[in-house]
Amino acid sequence: MKKLAIGIDIGGINTAFGLVDENGDLYAESVISTKKYPLFEDYKTYVKDLCEALHTMAGSLSFEYELVGIGIGAPNANYHLGTIEQPANLWKFPASEANPDESRRIFHLAADIKEQFPGVEVLMTNDANAATIGEMVYGNAKGMKDFIMITLGTGLGSGFVANGEMIYGHDGFAGEFGHVIVERGGRECGCGRKGCLEAYVSATGIKRTAFDLMARMTEPSELRDIAFVDFDASMISTAAAKGDKVALEAFRFTGEMLGRALADIVTVTSPEAIFLFGGLAKAGKFIFEPTQWYMEENMLSVFKNKVKLLPSGIQGKNAAILGASALIWQNS
Amino acid sequence: MKKLAIGIDIGGINTAFGLVDENGDLYAESVISTKKYPLFEDYKTYVKDLCEALHTMAGSLSFEYELVGIGIGAPNANYHLGTIEQPANLWKFPASEANPDESRRIFHLAADIKEQFPGVEVLMTNDANAATIGEMVYGNAKGMKDFIMITLGTGLGSGFVANGEMIYGHDGFAGEFGHVIVERGGRECGCGRKGCLEAYVSATGIKRTAFDLMARMTEPSELRDIAFVDFDASMISTAAAKGDKVALEAFRFTGEMLGRALADIVTVTSPEAIFLFGGLAKAGKFIFEPTQWYMEENMLSVFKNKVKLLPSGIQGKNAAILGASALIWQNS
Repeated sequence: MKKLAIGIDIGGINTAFGLVDENGDLYAESVISTKKYPLFEDYKTYVKDLCEALHTMAGSLSFEYELVGIGIGAPNANYHLGTIEQPANLWKFPASEANPDESRRIFHLAADIKEQFPGVEVLMTNDANAATIGEMVYGNAKGMKDFIMITLGTGLGSGFVANGEMIYGHDGFAGEFGHVIVERGGRECGCGRKGCLEAYVSATGIKRTAFDLMARMTEPSELRDIAFVDFDASMISTAAAKGDKVALEAFRFTGEMLGRALADIVTVTSPEAIFLFGGLAKAGKFIFEPTQWYMEENMLSVFKNKVKLLPSGIQGKNAAILGASALIWQNS
Repeated sequence: MKKLAIGIDIGGINTAFGLVDENGDLYAESVISTKKYPLFEDYKTYVKDLCEALHTMAGSLSFEYELVGIGIGAPNANYHLGTIEQPANLWKFPASEANPDESRRIFHLAADIKEQFPGVEVLMTNDANAATIGEMVYGNAKGMKDFIMITLGTGLGSGFVANGEMIYGHDGFAGEFGHVIVERGGRECGCGRKGCLEAYVSATGIKRTAFDLMARMTEPSELRDIAFVDFDASMISTAAAKGDKVALEAFRFTGEMLGRALADIVTVTSPEAIFLFGGLAKAGKFIFEPTQWYMEENMLSVFKNKVKLLPSGIQGKNAAILGASALIWQNS
């Protein structure tokens, strides 16, 4: 009998899910709103509605199959415990609740879903780790034992694979490469510290760089017509393609920051390849060329010209669902 | 029958070796000079003399045993290939040889020793990785699946264990944490780049810091009586124990540099513990207290107050031999 896994991608706005086979082919997909359940007390209803939608999708296929597992990618997910811990944008305390005890906001999502799917394996990790496993199972990292995945979205996520296994670390939260400090006392980061890599290298980071450059440089630029609140990182790609000097410098600087950080992390894990995934990675040569150049320029000699910098092989709108389902195939 | 492994520690001056059981008990030990064989063409004689000495030691026990393997810790060792590649201080080209091709200096030591010990497993890794495996097999990391070892000698070595396995990386050279850049454009490093962690955090690094501080500070200090060439890092510990302000500041600064670097690497690998090993680690609270403080001060909140900073459990004169022999026990 055909074997299928469910992959669930939980984002701040939507929760998308699909039925996937071991080759990464998608047999059904659906979505529910995450935003509709903003508060701490909405979590139970969210789980109930999600499980109903999963059962509906699972029952929608015209052929018989075995459901072998449910893989979930979610922010702040702890792989070891199957929990989501104090997520910045999910199931918040109501504004009225003064000094809430943040440590209460630990959601046992894997167990809560398993209750509705008895006998089915449920595994959860953060979105970047899910993308990493997706790359290993379906993408360009097939057969690689040691590689790094960098996911460039609103923030910078990462996944590290060594000896053919994901590094989850002792407490299940390894891979927070976006929060390595690259500029002591630098830009404020959402984590409350300063100078983190993701404050420079991410959609938000390159936008901040563009505004910094508009202040520093005198070159005319089409980016000067757009207010901060209306500004989207993709506008920098569009401008760079037309030769806009500010946009090109924004990419060069972003590549410099990323390339330096990658040279450092290569000395520690010695990967075969580094994959760039997500919105900013779609800027192609604008981001790949400076990143590669600064990575090699800063590389310890024993690692020079050895590490491949590659685009992800699971780009596309379903990448996050595939990545989450890959959690199941990797373990089977 | 009792099972024993040989552990070999190759240093620039001496090569020490011993017969070790799986509990880390030493049954015999001996040493030959490494320095006596300085040149490229001396390597073959070195291997011959080393193997003779190993056979002599192996035959010196009064009881029968099974020799299960030979583990080697050596600078620039490649675990995957069993080679020593372009070691800075071993088997150099003679000064007369103009523009020598450095890539020729790859020594197939594991295979060359195996030829003299047919049927015996021979494994080799760098000295820091050997110490790491020693910690896991005999020391304070017993039972830990995720930890980091920092070896503080002339330089800074490191070993990373994740999911219960050493991370050797794709090319066998992972774990060069001493060459993460912590100060852009900072102190010159032996690797040819600038600002590497080991230029600040190592016996050599703290010595450089002491001289920097003697220039910056006006406080009297007993360290001011010693010329650079006569200066040894242990003098800073001695002075610090007497309350010498320059010495205390040297440790505070060293701990700051190490603590910051550790906070960064914790975000990537999420270890249960970090072990400090080697000369500088023996300075005890002078190095542990500032390192711990700055590590926590710079830690991403999800990792705060979780990671143990501990002394190695295999300190002592035979630690390197034990570490090398542990390569065999870990695999058996």
